[in-house]
Amino acid sequence: MNLSPHPWFARKGLALLTDFYELTMMAAYRREGQAEREVCFEYFFRDLPPHTGFAVTAGLHSFLDYLDNLRFETDDVEYLRSLDVFDEDFLGFLSGFRPRCTVRAAPEGTLAFPNEPVMQIEGPLLDTQLIESALLNMLNYQTLIATKAARVCLAADGDPVLEFGLRRAHGPDGGVSGSRAAYIGGCVSTSNVLAGKTFGIPVSGTHAHSWVMSFDTELEAFRRFAHIYPDRCILLVDTYDTIESGVPNAITVFKEMQAEGHNVRPAIRLDSGDLAKLSKKAYRMMQEAGLEDPLIVASNDLEEDLIADLKRQGARVNAWGVGTKLITAYDCPALSGVYKLVAMKNDVGWRPRMKISSNMDKATDPGRKNLVRYYNERNEPVGDMLHEVGEDWLKGVDNGYIIGRRRTMPHLSVRIREAARGESLLQTVVEDGQRAAESPGIHEIRRYAREQIAALPDEFTRLRNPEIYRVVLSQRVGEMKEELLNSQDMAD
Amino acid sequence: MNLSPHPWFARKGLALLTDFYELTMMAAYRREGQAEREVCFEYFFRDLPPHTGFAVTAGLHSFLDYLDNLRFETDDVEYLRSLDVFDEDFLGFLSGFRPRCTVRAAPEGTLAFPNEPVMQIEGPLLDTQLIESALLNMLNYQTLIATKAARVCLAADGDPVLEFGLRRAHGPDGGVSGSRAAYIGGCVSTSNVLAGKTFGIPVSGTHAHSWVMSFDTELEAFRRFAHIYPDRCILLVDTYDTIESGVPNAITVFKEMQAEGHNVRPAIRLDSGDLAKLSKKAYRMMQEAGLEDPLIVASNDLEEDLIADLKRQGARVNAWGVGTKLITAYDCPALSGVYKLVAMKNDVGWRPRMKISSNMDKATDPGRKNLVRYYNERNEPVGDMLHEVGEDWLKGVDNGYIIGRRRTMPHLSVRIREAARGESLLQTVVEDGQRAAESPGIHEIRRYAREQIAALPDEFTRLRNPEIYRVVLSQRVGEMKEELLNSQDMAD
Repeated sequence: MNLSPHPWFARKGLALLTDFYELTMMAAYRREGQAEREVCFEYFFRDLPPHTGFAVTAGLHSFLDYLDNLRFETDDVEYLRSLDVFDEDFLGFLSGFRPRCTVRAAPEGTLAFPNEPVMQIEGPLLDTQLIESALLNMLNYQTLIATKAARVCLAADGDPVLEFGLRRAHGPDGGVSGSRAAYIGGCVSTSNVLAGKTFGIPVSGTHAHSWVMSFDTELEAFRRFAHIYPDRCILLVDTYDTIESGVPNAITVFKEMQAEGHNVRPAIRLDSGDLAKLSKKAYRMMQEAGLEDPLIVASNDLEEDLIADLKRQGARVNAWGVGTKLITAYDCPALSGVYKLVAMKNDVGWRPRMKISSNMDKATDPGRKNLVRYYNERNEPVGDMLHEVGEDWLKGVDNGYIIGRRRTMPHLSVRIREAARGESLLQTVVEDGQRAAESPGIHEIRRYAREQIAALPDEFTRLRNPEIYRVVLSQRVGEMKEELLNSQDMAD
Repeated sequence: MNLSPHPWFARKGLALLTDFYELTMMAAYRREGQAEREVCFEYFFRDLPPHTGFAVTAGLHSFLDYLDNLRFETDDVEYLRSLDVFDEDFLGFLSGFRPRCTVRAAPEGTLAFPNEPVMQIEGPLLDTQLIESALLNMLNYQTLIATKAARVCLAADGDPVLEFGLRRAHGPDGGVSGSRAAYIGGCVSTSNVLAGKTFGIPVSGTHAHSWVMSFDTELEAFRRFAHIYPDRCILLVDTYDTIESGVPNAITVFKEMQAEGHNVRPAIRLDSGDLAKLSKKAYRMMQEAGLEDPLIVASNDLEEDLIADLKRQGARVNAWGVGTKLITAYDCPALSGVYKLVAMKNDVGWRPRMKISSNMDKATDPGRKNLVRYYNERNEPVGDMLHEVGEDWLKGVDNGYIIGRRRTMPHLSVRIREAARGESLLQTVVEDGQRAAESPGIHEIRRYAREQIAALPDEFTRLRNPEIYRVVLSQRVGEMKEELLNSQDMAD
């Protein structure tokens, strides 16, 4: 089985990547004799970023690599001892600790919607508690960026989108894992060489203003760069004056290269100014000079709305370099994913658990759940239902519609119409601490995500005011939720 | 000399944490015989986040740890070879590469303002180019977060601010380096145990809703937690109903603890709902129950404006847990720091370089510069001046004011008034690749930052519409900029 871990997430020393309260709770559960009690947590997010109709889940395999390599090293235990909070029994336990969880998850790259359990962790209370923070950290960020990248690519409408956010990313692996997520979401390449090496993402780049500034003239700088990299020569034309100097010099160099017999595609990058106007003007100048099919890359604080607007203006841009606004998900830099206890096992079996809230939207959906996506005859998704694990969800499909319950008003029925078939999304990827499935690899994850985005009706993928995708409870989960809401003490 | 590196940034395998174009430019410089040419780059940011009057620089020592350990491993070189872009001469050179730069920098934790060279890198063109991306990545993010933390702490007005953003941070070291920066900016602790271990930051935490949900009753959950951690018992009171259930149960438990003779400070955490109303009500209930001096921690998407508003309403909160909005710098998640070529050496000596722009604000300030901060008699900073390296900046101080030039209109004079003394901020921290100064340690960095914030007049630290701190060019740098603007070809 190919489990080749990504060295970035498989590196040692991540055991302490957890919130302190996880450790104090773990130690306390152990003192209470509760640490081995079987529980079930689910990961879901409550909201999508503004104007966003779907999320592309990402981060699963980073999390699994972390989980596979989760060991407390001697210096980790020493550090914890130095805090004078934990007893030796607990510290000794950590020294030999290996996670024993079972993980069921939607394949990485699956499209997901609010309140859907895209990952489910079952295992001893102690293990499931420890990993909460790292799980949330990795899934929240990568899902956020993959989702943002998908929107940028939708705006680019088939043009390649090149990610180059490293310099504004949040630390080294804001860059590295952000590049991974951006690629899953649809970017064609990254500028981040470490991400390229670690994950096998294609790397790309042009040159910087400093290259031009380090030569006596811009023309000489272009000429030298083109001769060294005839196959990958994209000239940055805005160091001095795009139209007066940069574009004419680039034209001169590409003409020279062609005259010398190089089979080079004329390519420039615009990094400032009015990208609509400049790209049209540059395109015309290159055409008039007899340079066919020029590649014009635009960059400079681009995001999906700006790209859509540039396209609306007929900008002559055919590749988009996106950095800061993508790698930080600038307009909404956090996904509100949470990890909630949904069931505990007692002598009789699994008992559902639920967090009450005065805001019904925030009340969790109780019980261990299956996530089933229903499709119509045209293979478009028409709605998702949260079934209880073990519930026979297949039997409802034949009728053409499925009856469920509303999440926030579980006493009310609701239908998913046109359901021709259903697909159970959660798969067992770790069983009792052992990897149960091969990693599909990042190119396959990306392909899977793009295939689903292509199949999603336009009303969910548009950039403004998308439809809200239907996510409902099965009748059984709805009844369970209603019952728990009506019970007063939440006791077993 | 204590150079004990932080294992996080000193880890191997970061050599490829660079943008691909840095490597293609490096290889091209080598082909051109330019790689060894001495150049000078400066790091600065053009803008502060909205409503922000100052930045707290952070990330320097993370960058230095990275620099100290920058080696291309065999698999790095193998990967680059596989790209089929680089020749063997260049790959061989990388195998033995050790950075040879000289780094001058403002001490970590120095307050900085737009357009100030807070770091200056001198060395061979090749070396200075390679490190650009990692430098920007580390300095931009940590400075952003330290600055945000400083604002949150200003709003908290002396109350402790606890950072717990790991679960929404951008990947593992969005968390780890973010926690480091938040501590430098003024937070008293982090929830992130790995950051605690790596940097020696105090760790803190309470417990989660799942602790409460895993017991039959909330009262039992509280009772057990308090008995296990009598010294650090902060009870989370909003799992079911804060006022009807959480606070009364917490009071019961703290009364029991006191009756049993424990010297425990009553402490609760509010994590949802109307924090102003709930904190006042909870405080009153605890007072009426005879619990003196309760600690009330508030959390739930807090940031500086919300904290200031809660204080305005008289919220009875005396510690603030801040997560998402701090660790992602939610309202402005990127600092626009850049790294620009300012000078190149030729046979005659250093020659200034400058990037022109149609927007005068974006034209860089040419030449290798000193950053001098001037103070009045009351030791308040009154303005900063960018002098040329070698310029005798001391001589101007005696007059009580200093005459300089405007950055964007360098032909116009401008004064810094009330200047009683000046302080040169840039210090040599690396000389020809060797560490030249001891790392001050994170507690000292934090102390230094806080001391300067305390000395900064209120008009620069307020949360809305702060004054713009004066940053001007020396007459000499101003003249040089004017001359270069007037010259046409930017040639040597």
